[in-house]
Amino acid sequence: MAKINENYLKLKAGYLFPEIAKRVKNFSEQYPSKKIIRLGIGDVTLPLPPSVVQALKAAAEEMGTPSGFKGYGPEQGYPFLIEEIIKNDYNSRGVKVELDEVFVSDGSKCDTGNIQEIFSSDCKVAITDPVYPVYVDTNVMAGRTGFIREDGRYEKIIYLPCTKENNFEPEFPTQKPDLIYLCYPNNPTGTTITKQRLVEWVEYARKNQAIILYDAAYEAFITDPSLPHSIFEVEGAREVAIEFRSFSKTAGFTGTRCAFVVIPKELKGKSEDGSEISINQLWNRRHTTKFNGVSYPIQKAAQACYSEQGKQEIRANINYYMENARLIKEGLTKLGFEVFGGVNAPYIWLKTPNQMNSWDFFDKLLYSVQVVGTPGSGFGPSGEGYFRLSAFGSRENVIEAIDRISKLQI
Amino acid sequence: MAKINENYLKLKAGYLFPEIAKRVKNFSEQYPSKKIIRLGIGDVTLPLPPSVVQALKAAAEEMGTPSGFKGYGPEQGYPFLIEEIIKNDYNSRGVKVELDEVFVSDGSKCDTGNIQEIFSSDCKVAITDPVYPVYVDTNVMAGRTGFIREDGRYEKIIYLPCTKENNFEPEFPTQKPDLIYLCYPNNPTGTTITKQRLVEWVEYARKNQAIILYDAAYEAFITDPSLPHSIFEVEGAREVAIEFRSFSKTAGFTGTRCAFVVIPKELKGKSEDGSEISINQLWNRRHTTKFNGVSYPIQKAAQACYSEQGKQEIRANINYYMENARLIKEGLTKLGFEVFGGVNAPYIWLKTPNQMNSWDFFDKLLYSVQVVGTPGSGFGPSGEGYFRLSAFGSRENVIEAIDRISKLQI
Repeated sequence: MAKINENYLKLKAGYLFPEIAKRVKNFSEQYPSKKIIRLGIGDVTLPLPPSVVQALKAAAEEMGTPSGFKGYGPEQGYPFLIEEIIKNDYNSRGVKVELDEVFVSDGSKCDTGNIQEIFSSDCKVAITDPVYPVYVDTNVMAGRTGFIREDGRYEKIIYLPCTKENNFEPEFPTQKPDLIYLCYPNNPTGTTITKQRLVEWVEYARKNQAIILYDAAYEAFITDPSLPHSIFEVEGAREVAIEFRSFSKTAGFTGTRCAFVVIPKELKGKSEDGSEISINQLWNRRHTTKFNGVSYPIQKAAQACYSEQGKQEIRANINYYMENARLIKEGLTKLGFEVFGGVNAPYIWLKTPNQMNSWDFFDKLLYSVQVVGTPGSGFGPSGEGYFRLSAFGSRENVIEAIDRISKLQI
Repeated sequence: MAKINENYLKLKAGYLFPEIAKRVKNFSEQYPSKKIIRLGIGDVTLPLPPSVVQALKAAAEEMGTPSGFKGYGPEQGYPFLIEEIIKNDYNSRGVKVELDEVFVSDGSKCDTGNIQEIFSSDCKVAITDPVYPVYVDTNVMAGRTGFIREDGRYEKIIYLPCTKENNFEPEFPTQKPDLIYLCYPNNPTGTTITKQRLVEWVEYARKNQAIILYDAAYEAFITDPSLPHSIFEVEGAREVAIEFRSFSKTAGFTGTRCAFVVIPKELKGKSEDGSEISINQLWNRRHTTKFNGVSYPIQKAAQACYSEQGKQEIRANINYYMENARLIKEGLTKLGFEVFGGVNAPYIWLKTPNQMNSWDFFDKLLYSVQVVGTPGSGFGPSGEGYFRLSAFGSRENVIEAIDRISKLQI
C-alpha cells in the first residue's frame, strides 16, 4: 500500500474554519429557528463593486467571440493586470517593482501555503503567535516541524508571542530563523507595525540572512498615514522579503479569487554547494509547473479595481467595513471588554471576560446570543483567552451583534 | 541565507511549453512578417459556448447584488456543480460517486501536480514515457527522484516506454511502484486504452497495492463506444484509483480554469505504524488548507456545460476539433508520414521523417513552413523521434498547415 506523507498525521485535528462551521452547523440543527450572526470567518459581505461586475461581464462576452477568446494565458498573469498592480500599489508609494517580479494567483491562501515548497525542508520557520493557521499547517505538512507539544506548539517552529503584555509586537527571535512570517495589518489581532519597526525587521533579516514572508492582505484597511503598506517601502527589503497581496478583502474577491506575490530579483537563497539561487526564478519554476494562471475574466475583473470608478467603489466598501470596526470596538469597549485592533484592520481582537478560554467563549456566544466569532486559540497558543470579531458583516448585523452581546450573562 | 529546496536543481532546464514559446518568440523577432500556425501547445481556440458565457455573465450580475453575492464557498466546490458532475459524467455511465468524493479545482495541472504531496517522499513512481511533464517535474521537486541521467531519465522513476514498437501500450512495471500515472486518451500520443487493458491495470494495482493516478482530461474526445471514459467503470477501481477530469479541453476552459478530482472513500494509504489512512481525507486536508475554492462565477460557468444546450454546444466544438484531427491524420498519412492517435483524442503523434530528432524537426517546421508543434522528446526520452500536433487550431489553419507541410523539403 502506498505510504502517505506522514507529516499530515502531525496536524492537529481540523483546520480552524471547518471546525467553526461544524459547531455552527450542529447548533443550527438543534435550533433551526435561531438567527445566527456570523462575525467569525473573515469573509466579506458587500456585493462586488459595479465596475468589477461590468468588467467580468465584458470579459465573459469577449470569451464568447472568436477574436476575443483567450486560452492559456501567461501563468504569471496578464501584463494588463500586473502593470496596474505595479503602478497603483507600488509606484504610487515610491516603490519600484518590475513586471516579472509579480506573480498573479488565485489566492493568498494558496500563495502563503505554497511558498514554503521552494525552500529546504530543514529551514527554520518563525511565526508570530497567534497567526493565520495556513503558515503553520503548510510547514507541518512539509516536514519542517516535529509533533505538537502539550503547550499547543509544534516542535522546531519558533514562536513569537504577541499578547497585550508586549503590545502585540513580536520580539526578535532568540533562535536564528531562515523564514519569518509577518502579517500587517495583522490577522487575527488587527494590530499594525510602524515603519520604524519594519525597518528594524528588515535590518534583522539582513543581519541574520533570513527571508521575511510579508503578508499584506489587509493593507487597504490602513487609515493611519504613517503606517507602511508594503515592506518594500523599507530600503533594503528587496534583498530579504517576499510580499503577498490579495483582492479578497480589498475588493470583495473572497468568492471571486485573485491575489498576487511580489518576489524581487535581488532575493537569493543558498544551495548546498553554497551558490546563490534566485528565489524569483525558483518560484517561477514552481508557479509555471503547478499552476496555469488565473481565469482571464477574473483577471479583467481585478484590473477594474484600479480604474478610477473601481477605486472609489472599493474605497466606499472599505469605509463601510471600517465604520463597522469602529462600532464594534466602541460598543465592546463600552460594555467593559478589553479590545484591540479595529482601527487599521477589519479585525477586532478582544480579551475574553473572566479568563474564559477561547472555545468556551465561542460556544457561550453561539449558544447564548447566536453570535459567531473566532476563538483566539485557533490561531495559536498565545491566542488563548482572546477572541476575534470581523468587521465584514452588514451594518445591521454588526449593530445587532453588539446589542446581543450587551445582554450576555457571563 | 535560507537554504532552497535542493530538488529544484535536479530539474532539467525549462518546462517544455515555455521553451517552445521562447523559440517561437526568437523566430518572430527575426522574421516579424511571417505568419506562424500554432499546433503546438494543446490549447483550444473556439470561443466559449454561448450557454457558458451566459452563465458567467449571470453569475457576475448575481455577485453584484446583496442577495446574490458569494464570499468564500466550500473549498471542495459548490454542490450545484458537483451534483451535475456526478450525474452526467459518472451516473450516466453506471458509475456511483458520492458528493464528498469530488474536489473541484482550478485545473488538472494543479491537481496532477499537487496530488503527490499527500504521499511519502519515498514512494516509487511509475510513469508512461512519453508523458505530460507535470507528473515528472512535480515528483522531482518533491524529492522522489535522483538526478537526470545521460539517457534523459531521472533516477528512481520507473519509466514505461510507449512507442510504436509496443503499439503505445505500456507494459506492467518490473519494479514494484506505489503510484502509477496513466493518462487516457493519452497526452501526448493520442492513443487509448481498452476496457480489458484497464481491467488488467486495476488488477495489477490491487495485487501490488499501488495507486493509479488516472488522468482522463481528454475523455470527451472518445469516439469509439467500446472505450472506457472513467477508470471507475472498472470494478474494484475505487480501492486503487484517483481520477482527474477537466473542463479545459472539453468545454474550452483553458483560459477560464475549472477541473476536478474524484477520490473514492475506499482508497487507502499506509502510515508508518501500518494503519490505513483515507486518501480522500488526506486530500481534503490538503485541499482545504492550501486552496480556497474555484471562483463562484467560474463554477456557474462550468455548471452550464451540463445543461442540454451546453452539452450540444460543447459536442459541436469537440466534433469540430475531431474533424481537424481527421484532416491532419489523413493529410499527413497521404504525405507519407507515420501517424498515430487522432481518432479518440485531439492529438496526432507522428514519427519524424528520416530519424530526425524531435527538436530539429521542431526547428525545421518552424523555420521552413512556420508550423509550430511539440517535440516528442519534450515529453520524455521515449518521445524522441516523435512529434505532436494538436487538433485545436482553426479549420483554416489546420488545412493551411497540412498544405505547408506538404511543401516541406526534408
